[in-house]
Amino acid sequence: MTLKSNKSRSFKKINFKEKFSKFSEHWQPKVVANLNDYEIKLVKLKDDFIWHHHEETDEAFIVLKGEIHIEFEDHTISLGEGEMLVVPKGVRHKPYADQEAHVMLIEPKDVRNTGNIEDDFTAPNNKWV
Amino acid sequence: MTLKSNKSRSFKKINFKEKFSKFSEHWQPKVVANLNDYEIKLVKLKDDFIWHHHEETDEAFIVLKGEIHIEFEDHTISLGEGEMLVVPKGVRHKPYADQEAHVMLIEPKDVRNTGNIEDDFTAPNNKWV
Repeated sequence: MTLKSNKSRSFKKINFKEKFSKFSEHWQPKVVANLNDYEIKLVKLKDDFIWHHHEETDEAFIVLKGEIHIEFEDHTISLGEGEMLVVPKGVRHKPYADQEAHVMLIEPKDVRNTGNIEDDFTAPNNKWV
Repeated sequence: MTLKSNKSRSFKKINFKEKFSKFSEHWQPKVVANLNDYEIKLVKLKDDFIWHHHEETDEAFIVLKGEIHIEFEDHTISLGEGEMLVVPKGVRHKPYADQEAHVMLIEPKDVRNTGNIEDDFTAPNNKWV
């Protein structure tokens, strides 16, 4: 049972509302749990993100509150509370939200939030909340 | 952009309520999306599951509706709507729910739901909803 102590950080229940109450910035994902070599993150979205893609990984968006839109080259998918989408790797997309929305992201560790782009929206990795 | 057509199954939005309306059995996880070599599954829980552990993987439980309890050797963690827990690999646990609860599971493909045990609760893998 040594794994238990090694992983004690992950071995606590997580309450999303409580976690979201602890930060206010937009587009800065916060890790709440590790799952093997994946991370479960929470992020607040508002206004426009940038066009980007992830060369090496799919990315799951799960909407916990509000509504987001993910623009693709030929269409836009809107997601409300209780809806999710996996954006396949390599597919260019631009998320945006008219009002602040709360979202869970699932992706491998150390994925850059802006994918192939590095700019002011690039958020530091491994920030826990 | 060939990835898009190869992965069209994953490239649709998923509405959890709609997916849960399509099945009624308990403890039989249904895949709703692939995320690289991981699966996002929905499952209805009611009454007792069996004691088991997963030798090779952590397992994420995210409660979408109702309340579940996960019993460990020395304590029990209760999770309500909007709460989650990652059970670390190797840790024996027994989930149960007094009333039907709706849960999202995230884990690698081809994980046996009953972990190290094979019995009547062992559900077939790769069942989509």
